[in-house]
Amino acid sequence: MLLIDEKRLLGALDELAGIGAIDGGGCARLALTDEDKAGRDLLVGWMKAAGLDVRIDAIGNVIGVRAGSENLAPVMTGSHIDTVRTGGRYDGNYGVLAGLEVVRALNDAKRTTRRPIAVAFFTNEEGARFQPDMMGSLVYAGGLGLNEAYAATDKDGVAVGDELRRIGYLGAAKPGALKPHAFVELHIEQGPILDEEKVQIGVVESVQGISWTEYTVTGVSNHAGTTPMRLRRDAGYLAASVNVFVRGLAHEMGGNQVGTVGALSLRPNLINVVPNRAVFTVDLRNTDEAKLKEAEARVAAHIAEVAAAERVEVEAKVLARFEPVIFEAGLVDRVERHAGALSLTTQRMPSGAGHDAQMMQRICPTAMIFVPSVAGLSHNVKEHTEAADLLAGAQVLANLMLELASEV
Amino acid sequence: MLLIDEKRLLGALDELAGIGAIDGGGCARLALTDEDKAGRDLLVGWMKAAGLDVRIDAIGNVIGVRAGSENLAPVMTGSHIDTVRTGGRYDGNYGVLAGLEVVRALNDAKRTTRRPIAVAFFTNEEGARFQPDMMGSLVYAGGLGLNEAYAATDKDGVAVGDELRRIGYLGAAKPGALKPHAFVELHIEQGPILDEEKVQIGVVESVQGISWTEYTVTGVSNHAGTTPMRLRRDAGYLAASVNVFVRGLAHEMGGNQVGTVGALSLRPNLINVVPNRAVFTVDLRNTDEAKLKEAEARVAAHIAEVAAAERVEVEAKVLARFEPVIFEAGLVDRVERHAGALSLTTQRMPSGAGHDAQMMQRICPTAMIFVPSVAGLSHNVKEHTEAADLLAGAQVLANLMLELASEV
Repeated sequence: MLLIDEKRLLGALDELAGIGAIDGGGCARLALTDEDKAGRDLLVGWMKAAGLDVRIDAIGNVIGVRAGSENLAPVMTGSHIDTVRTGGRYDGNYGVLAGLEVVRALNDAKRTTRRPIAVAFFTNEEGARFQPDMMGSLVYAGGLGLNEAYAATDKDGVAVGDELRRIGYLGAAKPGALKPHAFVELHIEQGPILDEEKVQIGVVESVQGISWTEYTVTGVSNHAGTTPMRLRRDAGYLAASVNVFVRGLAHEMGGNQVGTVGALSLRPNLINVVPNRAVFTVDLRNTDEAKLKEAEARVAAHIAEVAAAERVEVEAKVLARFEPVIFEAGLVDRVERHAGALSLTTQRMPSGAGHDAQMMQRICPTAMIFVPSVAGLSHNVKEHTEAADLLAGAQVLANLMLELASEV
Repeated sequence: MLLIDEKRLLGALDELAGIGAIDGGGCARLALTDEDKAGRDLLVGWMKAAGLDVRIDAIGNVIGVRAGSENLAPVMTGSHIDTVRTGGRYDGNYGVLAGLEVVRALNDAKRTTRRPIAVAFFTNEEGARFQPDMMGSLVYAGGLGLNEAYAATDKDGVAVGDELRRIGYLGAAKPGALKPHAFVELHIEQGPILDEEKVQIGVVESVQGISWTEYTVTGVSNHAGTTPMRLRRDAGYLAASVNVFVRGLAHEMGGNQVGTVGALSLRPNLINVVPNRAVFTVDLRNTDEAKLKEAEARVAAHIAEVAAAERVEVEAKVLARFEPVIFEAGLVDRVERHAGALSLTTQRMPSGAGHDAQMMQRICPTAMIFVPSVAGLSHNVKEHTEAADLLAGAQVLANLMLELASEV
């Protein structure tokens, strides 16, 4: 067994969190900003000091490789170090630094693995500055062309390609050139389940499919006092009925089906006027593509029915649609086994959020390890995971990587 | 029978609509602005030219009195000439100018009535610049003190008292000094019922009671993908459920019960975040106070139930509460009889909007006459009533006033 140095891991997390630090203990390192560059520089320095061969690819993904005794495909781990505007210090960073800690522990133990070990951080996972999110890993897995990625601009019209060049991370390596034997990502849960149920390790089987739709409803604005109910064409009523329907649908479908109406605006938005316009969003997620499609179809049918009865027009615009990702079953089993061997409690679960690992599953066997997030807080400066949980996750990662690196 | 001069009535409406005219054919004469002063000056000039004794009271109400043959309480009609910011040309103005037309027709016919005839326009009926609405008639009926009314300020902090003085309409008369024998207000419906049902005269029996409440809901903001449905504390869901409940309640209670969720805002209002805050309004109206109370209680009970299940906090703030007003039954019957005598079709109905007449009912027998609003448009530059309907309403008013003015 390779022993993880808790103090060194926490120290690295602290030092990285110092870059782009914001009030409340969080971080602001939006992708490809000066803060992101400073974080990257710190990581690259650490990788080189740990003896890794650092490769930067054309989308700015950084991969540090520790040679194995045989010239085989590497066992790769990693995540991202960019954050949202008011992010926490663990989201992404933890997985990258735990991978670095595995390398440092191997160095301390002077151990050489059969297969190379690789630690990666991918560009713009958050999507908070440039869309799409998970951009670096998506390009790495061949799901997005370089020129398309370069052309993505932030709200000020600044492009990814220009920013990569400006901060010195438009590298020479071809994205995806290094095809891993396996990829394992360690991440905080970003949800409340493990914390709520007092479980130490989440064995991630899948990533939920995501369906985001924006609806624009056009009704007729009328006096709230003088217009009989039967003559109303209330855009806000349709929006409300969808929110209530989505809640009932999620309960009825059960499993991991979730549904949210997060954004809504009414016009004219006055107490005594029936709204003639409502713009609202529906976020549906499921790990089963057929069920996600069923949820989408049922929401659409409900909207059609209410729109006809209320005599309002509805326009739908798909904002995002990702199919669910199922991780490699054998690798998922091994996460569970290694956690069990350390007497850690486990729970199989889907990921409700998107991760780089879901892109890597397209090109190699992939799995994820979750550790608890206190109160499920995420994308929040108050995001927190207890030190014991951080250590446990890193130890599971180390043991699994060692096993993977030893096989032919 | 006293014949109304259609051309003269429409000409007066046109001329008044030219003051504060805005694109689309509407008017902007907010209370106590320069435009309101110009409209008042035009009316006062017309009243004087028609031989009326013009009295301006301390809240700026203007009453023109045509002497009768006996010194009895006058028969009064009237309404208001202030408008909302993008108002129509008939709301209020029609009732005042129809009253003036009755006087002009009496002058043409050289007829003297037993009782005096009075034509009034009340200050700030709309409440679009200063609250409360129906301010002038409320003060006239003794429901609001002068000093309280003077202290009301607009959004720039300008006070009613100062504006009355500035435009020269802080008069010497004591509000309410002239107690009418009866008050009859002619008004456009501001709703779709008469137009929809092709009825010429609305016989207004009552004014709906109004209950306005603003609710502020506090839940917990969470990731829309990673938070299981059972752990959600969704402020937006409660708001949506109230909207749907109010609709069902209005249908179930039937009669003239209406309910509207017109305003709603969510925070953080993002597609993938469960809202932690919702602020929304509920507008409930009924002509029966007991039923209005029942509706209020049932909405409150629904909110309490959903708030407990969703574990969210709800604060309620009453923004307005007026009890229903029932007009004098005998006078209402007479409106119906006079319309019938002219072979006009009638329908008994409540008023969904507030009117000066509801304040006058506190001090004298009062009734209202409605004429159709095309498509029910109100507080809208496109507000329209056909000339034939304007004439019919004015003729009913004239005949009823003549009858009232002839009695002891």
